[in-house]
Amino acid sequence: MLEGVHLAEEWLAAHGRPEVALLSPQGHANADIMAWLNTAECAAVMLADALFRELSGTETPAGLIVIATLPTLATPPATDRDTLALDGVQDPGNLGCLLRNAAAAGIAQVVLSADCAEAWSPKALRAGQGAQFRLRLYEDVDLPAFLRMFQGDTLATALEDAASLYSARWRHPLAWVMGSEGQGLRPETLAACRQRVRIPMPGATESLNVVAAAAVCLFEMTRRDLAAAPPV
Amino acid sequence: MLEGVHLAEEWLAAHGRPEVALLSPQGHANADIMAWLNTAECAAVMLADALFRELSGTETPAGLIVIATLPTLATPPATDRDTLALDGVQDPGNLGCLLRNAAAAGIAQVVLSADCAEAWSPKALRAGQGAQFRLRLYEDVDLPAFLRMFQGDTLATALEDAASLYSARWRHPLAWVMGSEGQGLRPETLAACRQRVRIPMPGATESLNVVAAAAVCLFEMTRRDLAAAPPV
Repeated sequence: MLEGVHLAEEWLAAHGRPEVALLSPQGHANADIMAWLNTAECAAVMLADALFRELSGTETPAGLIVIATLPTLATPPATDRDTLALDGVQDPGNLGCLLRNAAAAGIAQVVLSADCAEAWSPKALRAGQGAQFRLRLYEDVDLPAFLRMFQGDTLATALEDAASLYSARWRHPLAWVMGSEGQGLRPETLAACRQRVRIPMPGATESLNVVAAAAVCLFEMTRRDLAAAPPV
Repeated sequence: MLEGVHLAEEWLAAHGRPEVALLSPQGHANADIMAWLNTAECAAVMLADALFRELSGTETPAGLIVIATLPTLATPPATDRDTLALDGVQDPGNLGCLLRNAAAAGIAQVVLSADCAEAWSPKALRAGQGAQFRLRLYEDVDLPAFLRMFQGDTLATALEDAASLYSARWRHPLAWVMGSEGQGLRPETLAACRQRVRIPMPGATESLNVVAAAAVCLFEMTRRDLAAAPPV
């Protein structure tokens, strides 16, 4: 269930025609929504205001809800491409932001442990700003097993027994492994990682929120990749 | 109004005895809360459950609310120390995370434009994890005037006419200037900055959320500072 014309456009570009579109009376009067509907060529149903509002997750519904079947990936996650692995990230807003970060940093595959928030929930979709459509996204993944199979460096963010992010060495393909904010990584997940890195923090606080920590790690990777690339 | 024993401890360490503590019956039975009250030596009032719940911003109140007078800073913000300047960041959760990032990166001063969210609201305090107590925090600041007076490099994050973060040159003191997510920086604020930097993004998305973008910039600063520091 995708709400609003922005997510509807992302869906159409990534996956083609959805099952059905639901419109509110205002949605029916909205030029952007009607233009989308024209392109999508999918079935559309107009709902009364009260019912539409009840279905919508927001206070001020955008006027368009798209019902689509989740893309199922036929193959298991690849063990030889850059990956973000998330262990027990339960806040859907944080999860969406993490997916957005990963897409911006050029990471194409994200694997989630079974106890992560739902990546396709309305809140995670809003925070992800469409990143869900640009990633290969695997839910319910056995992270320790995946990491043991991974054919490259596996980097856990940890506070103890960890090398500085800035002196750690790695080579692609890389799996970055991030935990939930309160708990950190589960011991089994941590044990399956070949390296531990920490972000040196000059300030008095000992931690960053998980979205900020992931951004710092992923963009340290992109910084090094850019430095290694020949000038254009 | 600070809720929970963690923020109460931070307040006590930073500012001493608060005005008054409000307790729920559960709070009165909580050993941590009673230990805090013993140390704080401030007046305490027990409230009935229903009233306490109404005052509390959360579904499951922690049992302790501390009423304290906001610290007022007698001097204007310093124009010669590292600063994070926020222009129109209206989401209190994002604002709190930005303060937490700044504190972790060793930034000691944050200045906020008049239309930012309140830094001391319950939601911003929760997201800040006590960062508010470790920073010199100035609200209602005229950012363009402050930036023109600033005696060091002023760096705006921008998408257009901007140098790569990784090739930009700077020297302390630094003012990092971040805008609201939807709008970016106001033209007057942008015009008052001496440099514009952008974060190169290999992925398909064209933007990061403001918390992630700030973390990448601030920790690129700390990375360079560490690289310049002699080995210990």
